[in-house]
Amino acid sequence: MFSFKVLGKEDRARAGEWVTPHGAIQTPSFVAVGTQGTVKSLSVEDLREIGNQVIITNAYHLHLQPGEDLIADTGGLHRFMGWQGPLITDSGGFQIFSLGAGKEHGVGKIAPIFPEEKDRGGHLRSRTGKSLVKVDEDGVEFVSYLNGSPHRFTPEGVIEIEKKLGADIILVLDECTSPLHDYHYTRAAMERTHRWALRALEAFHRRQNNTQAVLGIVQGGAYQDLRQESASFIADQAFDGFAIGGSLGSSKEEMHQVLDWTLSLLPPDQPRHLLGIGEVGDVFEVVKRGIDLFDCVAPTRMARTGTLLVKYAERFRINILNKQFKDDARPIEQWCRCYTCRHHSRAYLRHLFVAKEVLAIRLATIHNLYFLESLMAQIRAAIREKRFAALEREWLAPPLHLH
Amino acid sequence: MFSFKVLGKEDRARAGEWVTPHGAIQTPSFVAVGTQGTVKSLSVEDLREIGNQVIITNAYHLHLQPGEDLIADTGGLHRFMGWQGPLITDSGGFQIFSLGAGKEHGVGKIAPIFPEEKDRGGHLRSRTGKSLVKVDEDGVEFVSYLNGSPHRFTPEGVIEIEKKLGADIILVLDECTSPLHDYHYTRAAMERTHRWALRALEAFHRRQNNTQAVLGIVQGGAYQDLRQESASFIADQAFDGFAIGGSLGSSKEEMHQVLDWTLSLLPPDQPRHLLGIGEVGDVFEVVKRGIDLFDCVAPTRMARTGTLLVKYAERFRINILNKQFKDDARPIEQWCRCYTCRHHSRAYLRHLFVAKEVLAIRLATIHNLYFLESLMAQIRAAIREKRFAALEREWLAPPLHLH
Repeated sequence: MFSFKVLGKEDRARAGEWVTPHGAIQTPSFVAVGTQGTVKSLSVEDLREIGNQVIITNAYHLHLQPGEDLIADTGGLHRFMGWQGPLITDSGGFQIFSLGAGKEHGVGKIAPIFPEEKDRGGHLRSRTGKSLVKVDEDGVEFVSYLNGSPHRFTPEGVIEIEKKLGADIILVLDECTSPLHDYHYTRAAMERTHRWALRALEAFHRRQNNTQAVLGIVQGGAYQDLRQESASFIADQAFDGFAIGGSLGSSKEEMHQVLDWTLSLLPPDQPRHLLGIGEVGDVFEVVKRGIDLFDCVAPTRMARTGTLLVKYAERFRINILNKQFKDDARPIEQWCRCYTCRHHSRAYLRHLFVAKEVLAIRLATIHNLYFLESLMAQIRAAIREKRFAALEREWLAPPLHLH
Repeated sequence: MFSFKVLGKEDRARAGEWVTPHGAIQTPSFVAVGTQGTVKSLSVEDLREIGNQVIITNAYHLHLQPGEDLIADTGGLHRFMGWQGPLITDSGGFQIFSLGAGKEHGVGKIAPIFPEEKDRGGHLRSRTGKSLVKVDEDGVEFVSYLNGSPHRFTPEGVIEIEKKLGADIILVLDECTSPLHDYHYTRAAMERTHRWALRALEAFHRRQNNTQAVLGIVQGGAYQDLRQESASFIADQAFDGFAIGGSLGSSKEEMHQVLDWTLSLLPPDQPRHLLGIGEVGDVFEVVKRGIDLFDCVAPTRMARTGTLLVKYAERFRINILNKQFKDDARPIEQWCRCYTCRHHSRAYLRHLFVAKEVLAIRLATIHNLYFLESLMAQIRAAIREKRFAALEREWLAPPLHLH
């Protein structure tokens, strides 16, 4: 019920199609983040209208609340969310370990955690001080960020949770290290992640499962030999695709290196997912290195603070709360055909944010995701027509016209 | 550009049509409250899909933020909101005076202010203690709940604001009294309101204005002779319709009496709007007394706390946070065709509320307004087919099947 095909290439960038039991994903694709079973503020109809193809939710969050049994008993995650398209569940490795070392080290995906980083691991809000996470060979112990209750995740247990949830694509449990972990610890964690990967795969294949695909996760921090070792090891296992997880270093440059080291060692005929990256500035960089899927909370989280994506502005963004937009009757982006831009002015959107009206969040989120979806559609077409490099130049060296 | 026609009657209940420059309103109709230029959490497309006909916004709130000039400069209120259907602006009399006596007396529309009453006059949040409102013959002085800046509203000034906003139907400035005001004060305030009504009318007619209709407001608290005197006086003026404002007493029964005293004295060929009433239990009571339009924050405010409208339950409501709905795979209401009921279970909606996901608010608001709109459509058809009394019996004496 799954098949992945590369339909076009330009240098290392690939355009393809990943068929799942809930429909095909045209790649490269952004994956909207719906941690708790909802892409914050959007209905499934909004997502369809935006052109969203696939959502990633989180086994860790859904296990804690409302629980995988409740979701299974009411018909599974697709039915629960009302989303009949492709779904991914992240294992929650990143979330669990950001409670531990990530919290102690004060770091996130590739850099120190920004204040707004906090809602990816909502738990960070309610905890301070020492690690609340204990890892051993068998698995990992942690306490619920909701009520302090103790939990244990094992590679097999997480597969079981994800089978109950029933997403199309599932990820194995991994141990995420932070950029501040030393070589020694990062190697030990990577090796443990490899052993967990084998156990997870065995649990996954224990009974016939044609309706789900399982992704292995490459770890190894920002260390070249570890990333290469991990990519080779994980590539050798019977996974349906691969994810690049964990710390991607302390800068964009290190992140690009990690991708270069890793992707050349993964089988070219299987899909690759980059976990937790996806600002507009990153999109061209990761796609040109051969990434097929990537998820990121940035577009939706930025929307909630009034930070809106536009093509010709510093870092592709404006903040609508800026006074200059007070009486600006234009849409957010002149050429954008999203619901928000077709119906509302910058002045109205700014008013909704200033007045703390909840509609502001939805209208901004619709715009940011639509913006990204239309960029991805342009990129897919460009790769198949061998003009990706030209498209990148057009986007990254825009005329000197700022909003 | 305006015409009102009564198309059917059953006893005192009327079914009619009010044509405005932005479309016709089938009456009796619920009027959704969009105080700050948005019906909280809903897009204009949501409102159209729900079948909403008309929105009431608030000149007081929009004057303070973002200001009537900004709205006029960007194309007027319809364009600002993106709503091309009929719009009403309340003058803000109720909001201003709930800062004053309403605040001192701790009372709302017909009863003590509930905690959740606070967001109708958002200002209540930021103020304590003595009156921040000073009324004199010329008008009323108050301070902004946003930043403490001083403001003065006069009958003429409010008409000017409302002309700039450009709603189809506008209300004059009135002085709202509370149920705890004595007869003497209530009479004085009513007489002042009458003098203000004449000044407002004169300001309204000073230049030709075919695109707006103006409503007079009947005051007089819960005193029979005052309500009758006020209804007679206001009915004699050249208004396009009438609103019943101010304190409606301390109980549902007093509210019904106020309507009985008042409505018989208003011209039968003009529309009547009851301000601030509209729980499901009230709908039959006010419609059968001859009300054509009514607005109320209750359905939208209740939605935000997880209180959802259903036909066969105590007070027509359930609270979705109740544990019994935890794994309930049914929609909120079996027969409901709203977006929420077509796509989602009670279990999912409860999960969204528990997880504090903002989508919960919108899905709940869609349901409550759709529920009310479908009740109103049933009521309109019933009146025209002389079976309103039977419909009322069916709704108010349901089988003993509670959710």
